[in-house]
This record gives sequence, C-alpha cells and structure tokens, in this order.
Amino acid sequence: MDHLAKNPANYVALSPVTFLHRAAAVYADRTSLVYNRTSFTWRETYERCRRLASALRSRLRVSKNDVVSVLAPNVPAMYEAHFGVPMAGAVLNTINTRLDARTVASLLRHSEAKVFLFDSQFASLAHDALRHLLREDQTGGGVIIPTTTNIPIPVVIEDPHAGAVPRASHSQQPPQLGGLPLEYEELIAAGDPSAELPALADEWDPIALNYTSGTTSAPKGVVYSHRSAYLSTLSLLLQWGVGMEPVYLWSLPMFHCNGWTFTWGMAARGGTNVCIRHTLAPDIYRAIADHRVTHMCCAPIVFNLLLLLGAESSRRRGDLGPPVEVLTGGAPPPAALLEKVQKLGFRVTHAYGMTEATGPALICEWRSAWDSLPGDQQARLRARQGISVLSLADVDVKDAGTMSSVARDGKAVGEIVLRGSSLMKGYLKNDTGTKEAFRDGWFLTGDVGVVHPDGYVEIKDRSKDVIISGGENISSVEVEAVFYGHPNVSEAAVVAMPHPHWGETPCAFLALKTSDHVAAALEEEEILAHCRRNMPHFMVPKKVVFMPELPKTSTGKIQKNKLREMARELSIDFHSNS
Amino acid sequence: MDHLAKNPANYVALSPVTFLHRAAAVYADRTSLVYNRTSFTWRETYERCRRLASALRSRLRVSKNDVVSVLAPNVPAMYEAHFGVPMAGAVLNTINTRLDARTVASLLRHSEAKVFLFDSQFASLAHDALRHLLREDQTGGGVIIPTTTNIPIPVVIEDPHAGAVPRASHSQQPPQLGGLPLEYEELIAAGDPSAELPALADEWDPIALNYTSGTTSAPKGVVYSHRSAYLSTLSLLLQWGVGMEPVYLWSLPMFHCNGWTFTWGMAARGGTNVCIRHTLAPDIYRAIADHRVTHMCCAPIVFNLLLLLGAESSRRRGDLGPPVEVLTGGAPPPAALLEKVQKLGFRVTHAYGMTEATGPALICEWRSAWDSLPGDQQARLRARQGISVLSLADVDVKDAGTMSSVARDGKAVGEIVLRGSSLMKGYLKNDTGTKEAFRDGWFLTGDVGVVHPDGYVEIKDRSKDVIISGGENISSVEVEAVFYGHPNVSEAAVVAMPHPHWGETPCAFLALKTSDHVAAALEEEEILAHCRRNMPHFMVPKKVVFMPELPKTSTGKIQKNKLREMARELSIDFHSNS
Repeated sequence: MDHLAKNPANYVALSPVTFLHRAAAVYADRTSLVYNRTSFTWRETYERCRRLASALRSRLRVSKNDVVSVLAPNVPAMYEAHFGVPMAGAVLNTINTRLDARTVASLLRHSEAKVFLFDSQFASLAHDALRHLLREDQTGGGVIIPTTTNIPIPVVIEDPHAGAVPRASHSQQPPQLGGLPLEYEELIAAGDPSAELPALADEWDPIALNYTSGTTSAPKGVVYSHRSAYLSTLSLLLQWGVGMEPVYLWSLPMFHCNGWTFTWGMAARGGTNVCIRHTLAPDIYRAIADHRVTHMCCAPIVFNLLLLLGAESSRRRGDLGPPVEVLTGGAPPPAALLEKVQKLGFRVTHAYGMTEATGPALICEWRSAWDSLPGDQQARLRARQGISVLSLADVDVKDAGTMSSVARDGKAVGEIVLRGSSLMKGYLKNDTGTKEAFRDGWFLTGDVGVVHPDGYVEIKDRSKDVIISGGENISSVEVEAVFYGHPNVSEAAVVAMPHPHWGETPCAFLALKTSDHVAAALEEEEILAHCRRNMPHFMVPKKVVFMPELPKTSTGKIQKNKLREMARELSIDFHSNS
Repeated sequence: MDHLAKNPANYVALSPVTFLHRAAAVYADRTSLVYNRTSFTWRETYERCRRLASALRSRLRVSKNDVVSVLAPNVPAMYEAHFGVPMAGAVLNTINTRLDARTVASLLRHSEAKVFLFDSQFASLAHDALRHLLREDQTGGGVIIPTTTNIPIPVVIEDPHAGAVPRASHSQQPPQLGGLPLEYEELIAAGDPSAELPALADEWDPIALNYTSGTTSAPKGVVYSHRSAYLSTLSLLLQWGVGMEPVYLWSLPMFHCNGWTFTWGMAARGGTNVCIRHTLAPDIYRAIADHRVTHMCCAPIVFNLLLLLGAESSRRRGDLGPPVEVLTGGAPPPAALLEKVQKLGFRVTHAYGMTEATGPALICEWRSAWDSLPGDQQARLRARQGISVLSLADVDVKDAGTMSSVARDGKAVGEIVLRGSSLMKGYLKNDTGTKEAFRDGWFLTGDVGVVHPDGYVEIKDRSKDVIISGGENISSVEVEAVFYGHPNVSEAAVVAMPHPHWGETPCAFLALKTSDHVAAALEEEEILAHCRRNMPHFMVPKKVVFMPELPKTSTGKIQKNKLREMARELSIDFHSNS
C-alpha cells in the first residue's frame, strides 16, 4: 500500500499562499486590512496580490526564485508583498528599516535582488543604498564602475502618511533606470488579476529570505521554504490560540521573520490586519479602540511605551471587553512589568525563537494548575521559554561536545537544539554557515539552557553571555532579571569583565527611568542594595555603570559586544585604582 | 537558493506520532486518558505505546506496512493502537464494530491483516470472523481448506467492563494458533519501552486503513499517509478551536476515520481522553460532570439520546461552566433540535466529510455577523456544510461532465470536489476505484451541492443511494445486492425512510418471482431471514414492502423518487402505529 501514487489532488505542495486563495473564496467580503482610511476586503487583497504577481512577471521580468526586496514599515504594500511576490514564483526579502544604507546595499548585493520596493519614508535610505550598489565601493572609495546588471529595479511605495520627505535633497533622486513603472500603485494597476500564475510544484522551493541582524558576525540570509512557512503558520495560530475573526494589530514589524508568520496566518483565519506606520503608544491605543484589536505581537520594549501612556488610556480601554492577546519575544518580560501591562488589558504570552526557526520556536504555554501558585513562583514559571510549537518535531538541550541530552532536572546546562520541518532551508550562499548550524540531525540555536522536569526549557544564557567567575557559571540573564525587578531600572545589561583573581566577574550597565541626576545618585545606592539582597554574593557585579541609554543595534538589541569592550577598559582602570 | 539541501534537522517526515513523543516530554504528568477507574498520564501512555510497538515487532513479527486490525469500542487499547501500531511501522486498521462476521472476515482477508486485536465484548464476532477466514467460504459452503498464512494473530483485549460474555458459547473458543501472547495486557507487558523503533523515512508511508461502509459496492480500503493524518489533525484542531487543556469525550467511535483524527489531536494538545465503552446518555452526562468535558464529537443521533435524558440532567449540568463544544457530522441537525441541545449546554458545530478526506472536510464556521439575524435565517445558514478545513488546498463544485466550476450563486448544482494533502492516498488493491475517485486533479465526493455567494458549500443531494442511519452510511446498492442474492427476488429497491431515532433507516421494496400469493407469504419470511443472515444488523431494512412490480420510468429504471415518497408516507404510519 506504499505504492499508492501521489496525484495532483492528494499531494498538493504546502504553501501559505493557498490561505489567500481560500480567504478570497470564503471570507471575500470581510475586511482583510485597514490602514488609516484605506481598507480592503479579502477579495480585494487577493486581486491586488494577483495584480502584483502578474506585474512583477510581465513588467519587471521577475521569474522563478528571483529575489524581490522590500524596505517598508507595516503598510498595505508590505502585506501584499507576502503573497504577491511568492505568487510570482519569486522570493520575498524584507529588509530591516533601521539598517544603514551601506548594509542595505550589501543585502541587495548578496541577495542579487531583482526588484527593490521601498516606502517613500525610506526613500533616502533606499537611494543611498542603490548609490552604494552603483559603485564598486567595497572599500568606500575607488573608481566608480557601474555594474547595472546587479542593480534591482526600484519601485517606490508612495504614501501621504509617510511624512515630510525632503524632496529637495539630492539623495531623493532615484538612480536613472529607464521608463519602467516605478510607483507601487502603478505596478498594481499594470497587473492583470486574471493572468495565469505559475503553480508551485515543490513545497521545498524558497518563499522568503530574511537576513539575521548579525549580533555575532556578518548578516546571514536565512531561506524559508513554502513548506516551512506553511507549517509554522498553522502551528503558531494553533499554539497561540488564534480563534475565528481575529483583529490583528501590526505592532511587530513584518520584516521580523515575516511578522512571525502572522502575515500569512491572518489570511488563514480570515482575520483583519490593522496596519500602523509607527509603533507608537497613541497609535496602538487608538487602533485597539477603533478596530477592537484581539491580537498583537511585539518586542518587550513596546510594553514600556504602552505603560507610559497607560494611565490615561486604561480608562478608555476599560469597556473594550476581553483583553488583547499579546505575543512577545526576546527576553521574558520581568514579572513586575507583566503585572502592570496585564492591568492595562493585555494578556501576555512569551515566546522564544529566531529567524532560522521562522520565528517563535518555543512558547511558554501557561497551565491552569499554575493559577493557584504564589506570585513569585508564577513569575519564575512565566520566565521560562517553554515548550516547542507543533511544527517542530523536537527540542532538546544537549552537551555541545558529545551531543548527548542533558538531565531534565532544571540544572544541567547545555545547548538548545531544534529539529523539524518549520526550520530554515539554510543560509544563502553560505555553505559553511549552513553546515555549522546543523549537527547530527539538529539545528544548533547557540543558546544555553536547561530542561525542567516538566519539559519546559529555560534559557540560562545566550552562549556568549555566560560569565565564568571562580569556576561558577553566572548567567547574565539572571543577574539582569534582578535589576529589572527594581522599579526604577529601565535597561540592564550584564557582561563579563576580566578579573585577575576570579577570571571573570559580572559588570552591569544600567539605565534608569529617573532623569533627574540628583535623584539618580540616590537611586544608585538603593539599586545596588536591592541587587545584594536578591542574588548570591558571587553573582553581584563588581562594577556597575549608569548610562542614560544602552547602545543598541538597528533592531533594538543591546550591543553587548560594545559593552564587553567597555568592561575590558573599565577593568584596567578598576584594577589599577584598586 | 532552491539548491539548499534537505537535512535530517530541517526536513522531518510529518507524522501525528510525533505529537505523542512531544506530549510525553511536555505534558508528562498530565492525565492522558481516563476510563472507568483506569487513568494514565502522557508519560504512561507513551511508555505503553512504545511497549505495544516493540511487542508487535519482536513477539508478533509485525514489520513495515503490515496491517494490524482492531475491533474494539473506545477503550484505552483502541487509543493506544493509534500510536503503537504506526510506531511499529505498521498500518492501523480499525473495524466498525457494527459489522457482521462475514464482512469483518472479508476486511481481514482484503487487508491481509497480520494481527487482529479485538475487545472481549466482540469476542463472538471476532471468532466467527476468524472461522470464516479459516474456510474457503466465498460461496457459503464447500470443502474447508485451512489457509493459515492469511489468518491474523488474534489478541483479545480483556476488560471487566466488557459485560457478561457467554463463555459457554462454542463461538467463544478462539481458533488455535499456538502459544503466542494472546491477551493485550500480556502483549504490553512483553514489550520493551526502550527498544529502538523504526524511524519514519517517508511521510507518504501509510499510517491507517479505514474501510468505507460501502456506499456504492464492496467496502473500499481507504489508505491515509502519515502526512495526510498530520495535516488533518493540526487543521481540525485549529478549525474547531481546540484550545489548551481540552478534555475530550469519546462519544464518536475511534473507528470512524480514527475519531476524525482527534485520537492524534489530543496528544498534540496534551488533552485528556475520556473513554466510554457505550455511547449512552447517562454515561455521557456522567463523564461530562465527572471530568469537566470540554469537547466531544458525535453523530447527530446522539443528540436524541442526550435530549431524552436532558430534562433530568440539565440541572446537573447547570453549574458546570462553559458549554461543551460538540462537532457533529452527517446531515445538519434540524434547527429545533439544535436549539434544544444548546439549551442543555452543548454548543454544536457541524462538519461534512468522508473517510477519503480523513474525516471532516468542510466545517460550518459560524460568523458573528449572523448572530443578529432572525432565527429562520440562522437555521438556513447553519444547515450549510460550510468552508474547507485548512489542510485542504481547495474545494469546488463542478459540473461532473465538463469539470468546469458552477456559478457561485447558491443555485447552480454540481459535484463537490476536493483537493489537498489531507486526502487519502487511494484505495487498497483497487486501482479502478482509485482512478475513478480522482479526476483532473480533484477528488470527487459523489455528493451534489451548490456554492453560495459567500463561499459556503451546501449539499443538495447525497449521491442518492446513501442512507445515513445513526451516523452510519448504508449503501442502498449493497442492501439491494443481498436481496437480489435470493433466488426468488425479481426486483429490489432500497431507499431512505425518515426515522425519529436513527434519522434515516432503509426501507425495501421488493417484487417476487412467485406469482402465487400463499407461496409469497411464506417466501417473505424466508427472504427477511436471508437478509438478516447476510448483512450487518444496522443495514437490515426496518420496513419491507412487497409489490407485484416496482414503479419504473419509460426506459425501465426503477423510480426511486416515487419510492422515497412512499417511504415518507409509510414512515408516518409506521411511527403512529408503534
């Protein structure tokens, strides 16, 4: 019976693009997307995506596996690209809008993007990036040699909401590339919604290319298959419990792992996408009130924004019914913060993931049995990264040397490894990187953690962040959590500082909420006392540095490498003085 | 980038068996299953399934793609077989317990079952079936030639709750097959939970074999792949909104499309399976109260049972919190019935499906906008079969001749066709049947329907020859064939007769060869006895009408529509008399 053959009816390539086709058929008149005064139905979104796909093919000569790059905030065109680009047989490459022109250029070059869609808000950045591409400027100088074959066709997304763009600026003039349709709506208009589009033959074909923000080395181009994107989409909807008729607020950039696959997920559920250009608290609260938002994802930093405005807005939220479900990534939010946010009408679930896992890989699934536990125990449970999403076949914590599983005792530390069909295909043009990322049938996350007896995984440290002091492993995350437990700490980062006796010792960098310098001085004492009260002595940082703000990458990650350098320099001072 | 290779970490064969592995890791101490006073955790269920798999391989020599048949109600062994059998690399074949011995034998023969697990409640049936297998009895007589190579190894599931089994009955003696472990718990005990089990290499491999009840001719063996079962499981959980910590009552037989995949689904969600041997109203209400059931599936006939006891039980249900979610198949329940059932604390969603689609294929997804419509309009909307589940790539209604889509106007009638990776691989040893089931990249359901402008599909007519009695499909053709098998029947036609308890029941119209009225009276008795001997009890017509000649069209076709009208009228008499 294993010889019953596959046929076109019972073996259909898995692709999240099928969700849009279905949405157009069964949710045709339901609102697919709202953005300021623009609003589309699923029928319209489908038609626009078909137009986009057709225009990309017929007008811009995009063909199978060509890369289409997009540099845009969460606007309709960005959403439509998630379907229109793969419907053309092409690969969607969304670019982080916080990158600098040189980096954008390097991504366009590396991906060999054929088309470059950019929002008018980022016209300067886009044009500068294209200019970088037009020159051989690897070293920042030299003779300009146009290499037009590698220049993507620029398409600007014009939008009156993009803000005042300095049109006079010389950098506003796009490179001259002939008379092609260069405006997004023109492209849509040029498309034929009834044109035949290529059928997907193989679900292993690429659908998206997402560059990591490169906290360690150069950005890597993570390639998703249609299969991985499909499976991840279904399993995240299920895991997060996204029910019928969701109203999803785009507070998470779509350029982050395709919005953790909820771009495609909203089509699967026939939900409504609420697009906002800026992730600002007033815009978020307004959108929640106007559209009765049910779900949103965001980085934990957004909670701070929400809390700042919270006092005024909570009354407004009061009669809006059930809380907004919030899925957040990155470090688990401190318990105190969570509590405040929940009071404002947000119910927070946190997840752990990475670009290579098409977004969230573990989710801290709450258990009803925990409801009756004391608050501090709940906080500890909530701080864990959790259990694997259903699209992963397995997660484990292994000794990186022997690749044997560590004891499931919440103590034995090892590397978190993943396995499953929602993982990336690999890194574009980086065989070494791809090879290093996988070992013995597992994907290596590079993060260090434990497995608790109940199967929940907890990160003990990003690999590089383990501080080894006098033979003891200190988790910087753990020390940071103590600092975040103090009401007046807004940012905390702990790194290793060389120490002549202990080898390494923790060094803390803190930013306070208090802007008043006199008050700050008083606070410092209080914070250090709090720290000593709340952690073992050996974990207490030997040095604490207060800064107005910690240095961050374009994606908002704290630049620990910079802090490590500072810690090394401080170490010299510190020891020569002491 | 399409050349990034698959590797064992990022391309893992999709299989619902992985859900059990995960459940054992992350829901280890949660209750997996309760049955009377028996209760297991997910850790225990996993261990028992591993034992079963290992014992099937090492003790019973089961190897890849061998069929293991199970004849049992919803007891723990039946649940465990859903994982243990595929974990052994074998194919699970669950058999409808309402079939007669001859049919069971024919299924065992057709599937070449290697092992035959049966519950002691069905020991007689199982032994009779094995006896049929031991003879060459295709014609019901002839020389007995033992064909031991084709006899499956019998394993009895002993259970004190199976009821008083007449041990003295000669049919209780199992055929002699040597000293193998013949009791299920012995088999479990003989298994080694740490034995290595074969890894699934190809998700297209078969996981289950489910025989249709034979809507056209002989029962067909529908083969599911691991892939189709996995996708169906995920998408049904999502579509029905099965959230965290579900408590699932087994009121639907697991032998129906593997319990519409919720056997596997409960492992995916770490839910609790509440097993009951008999689908009786007191047992259902008791289970709901004792275990705080959240979800159950059933045939619409079960609603009648619930309503009978409802008056007494509703008070008891009153303080049990949220309503029980009920997914039901078959014909949409009448609005009046639904209303009554909802009042008893059940929230009903109805689905449409078939064995070939791994269970529900369409689901009547309710829209909040419909809440405000008048009752009769709501009832009309609720009566529609609905929209495709997410594991299907597409559903359509097509002109069976031209295979072009009909207008989506709620009026144009065509055949309902499906496409997607949750569909069956095909029919076992039935190339003609498989070929006929698929056409031009679609699976033909054989059901006739329309598409409404909002994309919802509604059945207008079952392929007219199916009678749905108590959730079981009865093929009129099959029943007619039995009548035609009697030497004195000249014409036979079987149609559906409305029945207050079973929904529908077969009604037979017969014309005899004998013209002598006295002889005819004697023949009638003989024919009904012949009928009861040769078909499962539930297929036997509740009403048989003898006529000198059946009404026919000018071209000589029996006018079934006229007979249906007669059956409706007879039904009224029938019930007013009884």
